[in-house]
Amino acid sequence: MSSSDDNGSRIQEVKIIAPINIALVKYWGKRNEDLMLPLNDSISLSVNDVCAKTIVRVGPSIKKDSVTINGSTVCFSKHPGFLRCFRIVSEISFPVQAGLASSAAGFAAIAYGLGQIYQLTTSDIVRIARMGSGSACRSILSGLVHWKAGAAEDGSDCICETVFPEDYWPNLRSLILVTSHDAKKVGSSNGMQSTVKTSKLLQARMDIVPKQIMKLKNAFRDRDFGKFAEVVMSDSGQLHALCMDTMPSLRVPFQFLFQLFFKDDTRELGAKFVAIGRGAELPNLESRL
Amino acid sequence: MSSSDDNGSRIQEVKIIAPINIALVKYWGKRNEDLMLPLNDSISLSVNDVCAKTIVRVGPSIKKDSVTINGSTVCFSKHPGFLRCFRIVSEISFPVQAGLASSAAGFAAIAYGLGQIYQLTTSDIVRIARMGSGSACRSILSGLVHWKAGAAEDGSDCICETVFPEDYWPNLRSLILVTSHDAKKVGSSNGMQSTVKTSKLLQARMDIVPKQIMKLKNAFRDRDFGKFAEVVMSDSGQLHALCMDTMPSLRVPFQFLFQLFFKDDTRELGAKFVAIGRGAELPNLESRL
Repeated sequence: MSSSDDNGSRIQEVKIIAPINIALVKYWGKRNEDLMLPLNDSISLSVNDVCAKTIVRVGPSIKKDSVTINGSTVCFSKHPGFLRCFRIVSEISFPVQAGLASSAAGFAAIAYGLGQIYQLTTSDIVRIARMGSGSACRSILSGLVHWKAGAAEDGSDCICETVFPEDYWPNLRSLILVTSHDAKKVGSSNGMQSTVKTSKLLQARMDIVPKQIMKLKNAFRDRDFGKFAEVVMSDSGQLHALCMDTMPSLRVPFQFLFQLFFKDDTRELGAKFVAIGRGAELPNLESRL
Repeated sequence: MSSSDDNGSRIQEVKIIAPINIALVKYWGKRNEDLMLPLNDSISLSVNDVCAKTIVRVGPSIKKDSVTINGSTVCFSKHPGFLRCFRIVSEISFPVQAGLASSAAGFAAIAYGLGQIYQLTTSDIVRIARMGSGSACRSILSGLVHWKAGAAEDGSDCICETVFPEDYWPNLRSLILVTSHDAKKVGSSNGMQSTVKTSKLLQARMDIVPKQIMKLKNAFRDRDFGKFAEVVMSDSGQLHALCMDTMPSLRVPFQFLFQLFFKDDTRELGAKFVAIGRGAELPNLESRL
């Protein structure tokens, strides 16, 4: 996340580059829809090279809220929980609404921009980003980010923290392949709501997540790629499982989910997936696609 | 299940027509691999029109075990748990090893044939069928069949019973569509073993199954198609879920699973699926495919 101020005119303008984040132990379901509080903790990696470049402008000459993403005007009425008091021009280097956390990067950029303009604290910025799109709050921080669901009704303990900085595991690489630019058929929010209402296995997953989070942190700490891959793949499979246990079942392969490519495990893929490997492994992964 | 004896020669010959069975609340995983005892109860419908026509011959002139299915000799070493003392010629009216319970009908036919020749009790026939292919034991009985997992170590309480006879719900129809004749990539037995070893959600499903069984029996008793469809679809989704929660995940759409078509719920399908509807609904279902 970086920004630059332009105070030459009466319009305040901030340019922000916000990364997408790849969920390694995933968030699915909210404990409070209004406050956008998740049911479970999640862990992600912020990926700087895939980002939303965003300009946020605020000033007396701006009479009407306006949001433009990749040249198209965006109807903001879908996000009533988000503040509307600004002009935003966003360029996102990947398809919007296609399940690649574009809204995460976009809302992270907006929240960060507003934070710069109004001099907000990081925890406020994190909260603003979350109100736009839950997992956007993880994109405010860099490296391996732990988003804690918390238990307080007012969301005061729903926070994000960087567990390891972005240079902690220098040869870890991700490779993101987009095989379709179509928008998702079922939005993540609607999908989650269906799962929370109908899945009989959801509680079992809630009980498993804390152990998964711990295993992932330990594997990352030890830079143990085998254990890391095991946790990420089992979590990915388990989120697919929740989608299948939802009534009616969410489309599988569900486009929100990503795929970790490792050795010869080549599962069926959705419209896009993420391969994670160590430095020299990735060219080899690419050649196998 | 029907048979006819031919005692004109020294070779005893029995002809059997055995139905496939469609699992409505499904079996996945064994509590004892040697005795083929399932982890959970299951419920199925025997479908007489899709069947294995089988001839079992036993006699002193038969020197070597031999099994032929649809004209091809079958290597029986894959089924060491099954008795081998006979010559079997089987014609199955659907693809073998393609996930359509062909082995269930085939082994049910063989077990029933042996039962006729050696005058075994139904419970012995059920046990023999189970040793060939777990769910085959359900094809021994007609109508809605409850296969009880039991708890005894020797399997003595692992039994099948008809809950409702085949004419109880006369206008219930099934429509089976085979869209590929390819063999399954992962056999059910291997898939189950992986799930039992690696799925973290398996225990949660085990806790859910008894309630599902009860709901299904009640819906069937009341001929309440809405509730019936709900149980079958949620069980189908949940078995998909277990497959996705297996490491490595079993291919989805997994070919063992079937699909219940109802109203406008048109989920992605595997190589084959089963549509269940009430009499007049089925032509309409067919036209929508």
